[in-house]
Amino acid sequence: MIETGFGSHGGGQTGNGVPSLSNILKLDPTGSRGKKATGDALSILQAMVAEDMNKVNATILKMMESPVVLIPQLAGHLIASGGKRLRPMLTLAAAQMVRYEGERHCHLAACVEFIHTATLLHDDVVDQSELRRGKDSANTIWGNKPSVLVGDFLFSMAFEIMVADGSLKVLKILSRASSVIAEGEVMQLLTTNNVETTEDAYMDVINAKTAELFAAACEIAPVVAERPAKEERALRSFGKNLGIAFQLIDDALDYSAKEAVFGKTVGDDFREGKITLPIILAYNRGGKAERTFWKRVMEGEHPKDQDLARAMACLNKHNTLSDTVDRARHFGAKARDALALFPGSEAKSALLGIVDFCVNRAY
Amino acid sequence: MIETGFGSHGGGQTGNGVPSLSNILKLDPTGSRGKKATGDALSILQAMVAEDMNKVNATILKMMESPVVLIPQLAGHLIASGGKRLRPMLTLAAAQMVRYEGERHCHLAACVEFIHTATLLHDDVVDQSELRRGKDSANTIWGNKPSVLVGDFLFSMAFEIMVADGSLKVLKILSRASSVIAEGEVMQLLTTNNVETTEDAYMDVINAKTAELFAAACEIAPVVAERPAKEERALRSFGKNLGIAFQLIDDALDYSAKEAVFGKTVGDDFREGKITLPIILAYNRGGKAERTFWKRVMEGEHPKDQDLARAMACLNKHNTLSDTVDRARHFGAKARDALALFPGSEAKSALLGIVDFCVNRAY
Repeated sequence: MIETGFGSHGGGQTGNGVPSLSNILKLDPTGSRGKKATGDALSILQAMVAEDMNKVNATILKMMESPVVLIPQLAGHLIASGGKRLRPMLTLAAAQMVRYEGERHCHLAACVEFIHTATLLHDDVVDQSELRRGKDSANTIWGNKPSVLVGDFLFSMAFEIMVADGSLKVLKILSRASSVIAEGEVMQLLTTNNVETTEDAYMDVINAKTAELFAAACEIAPVVAERPAKEERALRSFGKNLGIAFQLIDDALDYSAKEAVFGKTVGDDFREGKITLPIILAYNRGGKAERTFWKRVMEGEHPKDQDLARAMACLNKHNTLSDTVDRARHFGAKARDALALFPGSEAKSALLGIVDFCVNRAY
Repeated sequence: MIETGFGSHGGGQTGNGVPSLSNILKLDPTGSRGKKATGDALSILQAMVAEDMNKVNATILKMMESPVVLIPQLAGHLIASGGKRLRPMLTLAAAQMVRYEGERHCHLAACVEFIHTATLLHDDVVDQSELRRGKDSANTIWGNKPSVLVGDFLFSMAFEIMVADGSLKVLKILSRASSVIAEGEVMQLLTTNNVETTEDAYMDVINAKTAELFAAACEIAPVVAERPAKEERALRSFGKNLGIAFQLIDDALDYSAKEAVFGKTVGDDFREGKITLPIILAYNRGGKAERTFWKRVMEGEHPKDQDLARAMACLNKHNTLSDTVDRARHFGAKARDALALFPGSEAKSALLGIVDFCVNRAY
């Protein structure tokens, strides 16, 4: 599942008796990489880009205006109640790091958010069988069709902003990202309900559906600042690896996150038959009985509540959540190293901090 | 409903006993504006652009390649089995009329077809209630989600082609068209099931969801040919008015077309609760009993077969199909006049012929 928001998580048990990752991993949430530190990294980034983010918000609100009331209504619901705007924040922070002094990054950060929001809307479209699985997402309020059409509107708006900006290089980066995301979403569809999905296939999916937009969001900053190509490559690599780490943690959190804080229910991916790394590892490491169980619950249509409890037990038995976090750490480390060529600055520190935040929000 | 293909129609009764428009209008289908003449106009246009259309097809096939098998599969189903590619033909013919000699119009014509196909895929997304109404469209083969995601992929491809073409002016025209189409689709959603939709509101919908892409398809030809602004305006106006005429006829045909030839069933719009001009006129002209009938069948969820028969009777009683065709004729005349400033040529004749074809395919 693509996140619809995130927050810092405390340790211990979640509201519905599911242990949090901090508990699973036996980590101290108040330690140096715990709640406080990661929460601070997000606050630092937010404060640093606050002024620019106001401009992003103004662009978003302006573009959402339409005499067709459903458009501002539905888009507003998503954008206003959405997450922390991590992707546009990356564009803004990267622009600061490369000492860009214009305004274009604010408009382009709005594009990034529009593309992300359109993807969310389209990702929420369900087929009849899925409705029966009790999915409860934004589009259940309005139905499939408005979600699709308003998503299209946001997507078109993103392109209109880019065209107005006038850089073919930026257009190329973001139109390529859009294609890759769409391809990734279709790929994910083909892995859904298939417990024999390989880790490599899963990595291809998250590379495309999540990491590509993180990469593009970061890459466009040195482009508008007309910095050398090596800085474009570095920031692209930073975004790409950060995005992979982010999605890995997101997929682990689906089996541990606090409902109220995280804005989604534990086991959403499980109920949707979505195959993520924790499941792939558990299936590979499990014996015959476990594999039969995974096949039944992931490939069938009606997993039950007790199935989720057994699934959680399997995931923990094989340490698949902590190993998913370890995989994420690897990509987090690559992201940090990608920034090596930039001199120290407040913006660079904030970007490094956000890597820790993304990896450590699991605790 | 947006058309998924069209053909020439004979007179008399259609296969399921529904009278064709030629019968309703008491016109001779073999007359000067009948089947033969309109069929010829289409053949003439097709022959004229055949060579360029091969290049368009090559671009389409190349862009649809993806290791994600569902993408070429689903897109191929739609594109290969699709209509006569009227929209890209307009780009090609307009380019010939303005004596453009490069290759760019072929790539951009492929963009136009991608945008159209993406719109078709997204237009086919249904909600649960609609599934119950017995809709049988492309997406029922694969489900909603693949239709949405492959549509997104095609849409992104369109932008990638435009970016590769490199004209910001073309990008502006087509990204604006995409936004307008999306807005029009949302607008249409808000008029669905509402029999009190005004003729003006209906015109706004078809202007946006259909005519805008016709206009853009024609307008980009003089842009790539670097012709004066007045030719851009003229071709835009031609496309706009042709598109309106085309959609008006399409909406009339929904109540008369031969299933086998037209590729859709009679009364599709009726069953979907889609409010089109024939219904709007019949509601306005009807007495209290008729209005009650329309409210029940269009605003409720389960129109029955005998409801369609009564609806057809009401439409005929008030001549709303022939009056819809008359409205279309008005826009067809405007389209023809928009081409006045271009000197006579084979391409101009073909474009004028296609106006007649679009209006007269109703017979």
